[in-house]
Amino acid sequence: IRTSVVAADAAERGHYRHFMLKEIFEQPQAVRDTLEGRITSTQVLPEAFGPQAVTLFPQIQAVTIVACGTSYHAGLVARHWIEGLLGLPCRVEVASEYRYRAQIVPTAALFVTISQSGETADTLAALRLAKQSGYLATLTICNVAESSLVRESDLALLTRAGPEIGVASTKAFTTQLVALLLLTLALGHERRLDSAFMTQAVTLLRNAPQKLEKVLALDEQIATLAAQFVEKQHALFLGRGAQYPIALEGALKLKEISYIHAEAYPAGELKHGPLALIDENMPVIAVAPNNALLEKLKSNLEEVRARGGQLVVFTDDHAAMTADAHVQLLRLPPIDDLLAPLFFTIPLQLLAYHVAVLKGTDVDQPRNLAKSVTVE
Amino acid sequence: IRTSVVAADAAERGHYRHFMLKEIFEQPQAVRDTLEGRITSTQVLPEAFGPQAVTLFPQIQAVTIVACGTSYHAGLVARHWIEGLLGLPCRVEVASEYRYRAQIVPTAALFVTISQSGETADTLAALRLAKQSGYLATLTICNVAESSLVRESDLALLTRAGPEIGVASTKAFTTQLVALLLLTLALGHERRLDSAFMTQAVTLLRNAPQKLEKVLALDEQIATLAAQFVEKQHALFLGRGAQYPIALEGALKLKEISYIHAEAYPAGELKHGPLALIDENMPVIAVAPNNALLEKLKSNLEEVRARGGQLVVFTDDHAAMTADAHVQLLRLPPIDDLLAPLFFTIPLQLLAYHVAVLKGTDVDQPRNLAKSVTVE
Repeated sequence: IRTSVVAADAAERGHYRHFMLKEIFEQPQAVRDTLEGRITSTQVLPEAFGPQAVTLFPQIQAVTIVACGTSYHAGLVARHWIEGLLGLPCRVEVASEYRYRAQIVPTAALFVTISQSGETADTLAALRLAKQSGYLATLTICNVAESSLVRESDLALLTRAGPEIGVASTKAFTTQLVALLLLTLALGHERRLDSAFMTQAVTLLRNAPQKLEKVLALDEQIATLAAQFVEKQHALFLGRGAQYPIALEGALKLKEISYIHAEAYPAGELKHGPLALIDENMPVIAVAPNNALLEKLKSNLEEVRARGGQLVVFTDDHAAMTADAHVQLLRLPPIDDLLAPLFFTIPLQLLAYHVAVLKGTDVDQPRNLAKSVTVE
Repeated sequence: IRTSVVAADAAERGHYRHFMLKEIFEQPQAVRDTLEGRITSTQVLPEAFGPQAVTLFPQIQAVTIVACGTSYHAGLVARHWIEGLLGLPCRVEVASEYRYRAQIVPTAALFVTISQSGETADTLAALRLAKQSGYLATLTICNVAESSLVRESDLALLTRAGPEIGVASTKAFTTQLVALLLLTLALGHERRLDSAFMTQAVTLLRNAPQKLEKVLALDEQIATLAAQFVEKQHALFLGRGAQYPIALEGALKLKEISYIHAEAYPAGELKHGPLALIDENMPVIAVAPNNALLEKLKSNLEEVRARGGQLVVFTDDHAAMTADAHVQLLRLPPIDDLLAPLFFTIPLQLLAYHVAVLKGTDVDQPRNLAKSVTVE
């Protein structure tokens, strides 16, 4: 019997060495599936969230998002979209903290949970609490149709990532980002977002799978880069704005599967403490898309360079920093700022993966962790 | 001339080996000074914040707090007080992030900055931005009367910590906590907080210096504890609720002066990733006051114990975990939950200090860091 399980396992993995790598490469398809039937060429269909969404969404005045781990990072990105594009106040909370805080419920607020499994204990308990707290409606972004979160929420948008076997979440995260952008656009309908913006946004989404393929093509370059992390015990991930949650997610991946103590900081906080840690033993990874924050980020990175830190910079800016003995650049194809968090996630996943493989850890089943955290 | 500077320096330090230690032990007096003339036996005097406060405070419906580094951690504690005691929504933002985000300004909101120097570049820029964004009023919690933040804010409450020489902030932080509790109580006057609660709170504040002395008496015990951290490269700090920011602050102190890569997590997030890092090389420090969250926290700590992690638990609970080969307990005197963040800060400061001394770092002038971050 054991043999047949292994055989089935190998068959499902196809030619990939680990489920995690397979799932990383499934992301273009997972995003395509998540978009399927939910957008037209000019808008997001609110009914994709459930029949009530059509009447509920125009009433929403605020959003509260509650999640754990990787899903929490997706929520932090969504906050930038919801506040930045819609001007709606958005609170994002770790579920295990939210449950034991005073409940502050804004007027006409939508309560959103995010979870791959839909069974995360703290998130589910937070939803049950929220349903008694006076929210206008509850919505879940979830990967499992028959899960508790889907059953118990008023509205749901399923990420169609397919089964995720690797404990470290990859395609579930990127499809969560897509789902949260769909939510933002659906909430923006007939509000601040004009039809030109909406058309542009759905076009970017529709083209995302193709662009994800291009970013995945960096795999070999990243595998080469990974070698220098194998002997390291530490890493610092930096980002600003919507890339700070991506830095958090990149650090979490490296932690989870390579057991390297990686930590993320908003780059502007560097001088308020973590700079003391910087030396040749603590490589710094920066997520540096070509946007309004790039100049500020570059000046933070110069501080790292000046202190002998080793820098790896992921950027789509073709005139960004110059590479030298201390600075390695990895260039992504040019990326629109709206979807930058989605695309910059990919090289960080690949980096964590290749470092773990080189270290020889159990990539799909890292020590101490379970796929779905169904206890508190 | 050099000699006389050193002599003056030594004279100012008194019998303390470092300014940081002197400043840690000055905290009872700094708190006493910060309270002086600002409380009666039954309430906080709103006019302590400026003459306009008497008419402004009753109008406040929401609070936004912006700060950097240690001051940001004080803001995170204040959020628990403002939301938990007053039911007013409170946003807390890192200044270097806030400046470049969409400005979401709640109705009748008070904009609060926190900074020891009053010259922190990002915080000052955030204040200037906020003044054009439609806040009802601006207020600063600051240690320097003639600083830019004080001059440019409508209202101010000076922490009277006295000059802080050590780069790693100690007495500035605890007096910020006291100032923020004074603000909470002043905002609560004639709102949710009844006179019995108010009287109890000001009594707790008035007795705080004396209790701080008792906590400082743990110094020798903590110095002994510190020895086991000298050879470590990592540490994980855990807390829940209002103690999570204290865990953040404890980790930051250890980072800043001992160059140990310390990171803080809300304890409930442990299973969502960082548990993979736990082994005998990554000690875990828990801030575990005897409150409603203790049972949940203990179950998180059992996960650490079960995975061979070394635990150091700071608690005032006399029936908390049992010490064993993997778990060391350090007991504080019983502490009222309202002021627990203040008191639990002390042992974490002392721990960072003693580890740094044993490691032989430049405690008062850690590498790469400046006392006041006046560049972005």
